[in-house]
Amino acid sequence: MDERGALALLETELEAVGDDAAVIDSLVVTTDMLHDRTDFPDGTARYTAGWRSVGASLSDVAAMGAEATAAVAAYAAPTFDREELLEFVRGASDVCEIVGAEYVGGDLDEHQEFTVTTTAIGSADETVARSGARPGDLVCVTGTLGDSAAGLELFQRAADGGPNADAVLERANDLFQFQPRVAAGRALAPHATAMMDSSDGLARSLHQLAAASDCGFAIESDEIPIDDTLLEVAADDAKALELATTFGEDFELVATVPSESLEAVRDATDVPLSIVGTVLECNDGITLDGETLADAGYTHG
Amino acid sequence: MDERGALALLETELEAVGDDAAVIDSLVVTTDMLHDRTDFPDGTARYTAGWRSVGASLSDVAAMGAEATAAVAAYAAPTFDREELLEFVRGASDVCEIVGAEYVGGDLDEHQEFTVTTTAIGSADETVARSGARPGDLVCVTGTLGDSAAGLELFQRAADGGPNADAVLERANDLFQFQPRVAAGRALAPHATAMMDSSDGLARSLHQLAAASDCGFAIESDEIPIDDTLLEVAADDAKALELATTFGEDFELVATVPSESLEAVRDATDVPLSIVGTVLECNDGITLDGETLADAGYTHG
Repeated sequence: MDERGALALLETELEAVGDDAAVIDSLVVTTDMLHDRTDFPDGTARYTAGWRSVGASLSDVAAMGAEATAAVAAYAAPTFDREELLEFVRGASDVCEIVGAEYVGGDLDEHQEFTVTTTAIGSADETVARSGARPGDLVCVTGTLGDSAAGLELFQRAADGGPNADAVLERANDLFQFQPRVAAGRALAPHATAMMDSSDGLARSLHQLAAASDCGFAIESDEIPIDDTLLEVAADDAKALELATTFGEDFELVATVPSESLEAVRDATDVPLSIVGTVLECNDGITLDGETLADAGYTHG
Repeated sequence: MDERGALALLETELEAVGDDAAVIDSLVVTTDMLHDRTDFPDGTARYTAGWRSVGASLSDVAAMGAEATAAVAAYAAPTFDREELLEFVRGASDVCEIVGAEYVGGDLDEHQEFTVTTTAIGSADETVARSGARPGDLVCVTGTLGDSAAGLELFQRAADGGPNADAVLERANDLFQFQPRVAAGRALAPHATAMMDSSDGLARSLHQLAAASDCGFAIESDEIPIDDTLLEVAADDAKALELATTFGEDFELVATVPSESLEAVRDATDVPLSIVGTVLECNDGITLDGETLADAGYTHG
């Protein structure tokens, strides 16, 4: 059984599974495990790892439209290096600070592979699920897509060496320190009919929203906000579009919003919102420029 | 740097580190990572692993004197077996149920080694820290100590085979499914001056309480509640006492309580409470039957 099959199995067993975070009364809880082999390319600074792993859980809180309260991390490594550990904690603390949450530590463990499990907690009187999108709603995306795809490319270039390897590595690390969209999620929450984050890629996010909301989508590629660095480093614009749509790990929000609410949302947040398409009836399918958009993307651990 | 050194470093960096769980307003949060090599002996059923890993975090909530609200787990394994996964979820759900918490799922991850990170959340208007023990207070321990030491011995016997291996294995699994002392923690909370769980062993717990409370302890070995199975399987009574004192992983509560409050605590809980000693001044040290009790025990990941 692969991860998606296992997740589907758990959805039938546990009522709370199936959204970005579990909701218990007004409490929102989400946990994620990341590890070296799949999540932290060579060259990922421990500060970046702390920022990114805690940020991934904060993004799930954002996707529920909740405020972020606190985060913890279990940090496992073969050995504990003082500077690495402190840098991890600084990255974790800093990403919490920018969203108004508190980083409150966690657990340490000896493990063969660098592995981090983060848990974030939020609160909201009402949360936004994946299941309420209605035909006619607009599909909004915060920020830009493809930042992590561009980051991975730069990590690879830095690993290959060259005169500017240090500068390339620094840019890669910067791209991996994404902004969890907690404030934008709060701005979207009163209006959004459905919401999730784009951690598995836009295409897969749309398929998951469609399954939960029983709807279709028509997406226009010209409207997809592609990260500038990705446009610069990808082989061509078509490749950049493909990566922006399917690579994932961008932790932007994908939300459906009634058109009459768009202005109110934009007034409530400084984060750029792109309208990438509209919600259709279920039997209209999921299309990009009129062509079927495959359920392709990253299956995250 | 070993785990204890790394933890000490983090205590200087993060205000919330240094107790069984972090406290944010009335919210209590704790996270733990467990894995095959160190925490789940051969023969540990996935149901037991689910129970035990989630229970370990619930025990930390109990040690704060908080109610347990919810728990999540990140479950990582080389492959996902349907029955194993469901058994894990059932164990996790069942241990939550007995303490009035909700198990709300978590994350799945492919990993070379079976690894579980659990996070539990609780709530309390006032929590009990490790730092308030006062000379003259009584030292209370819930339940019995050495259950896990006995369980490990039985896991080893079952692995060695023999005519009753299946029955021995079942007993070992039963011993590993401990009761998180949430209700007892609630009963102790209004009266306890300091509290923690015994997951690192009684000796180490006493050293940690002494460091936080700036006190000493006089413990009487005759009063230590040793698990019956441990008395049966240990080489002799001296070995049983040593294991009950230092093996840890029992997840009982160790609390200091003014003597005048003892009756009120006992009235408020059905869990057996043993009075194993008294709190002394700091310069009286930590003694067992008058002899210095070393800071020996299990350093947990």
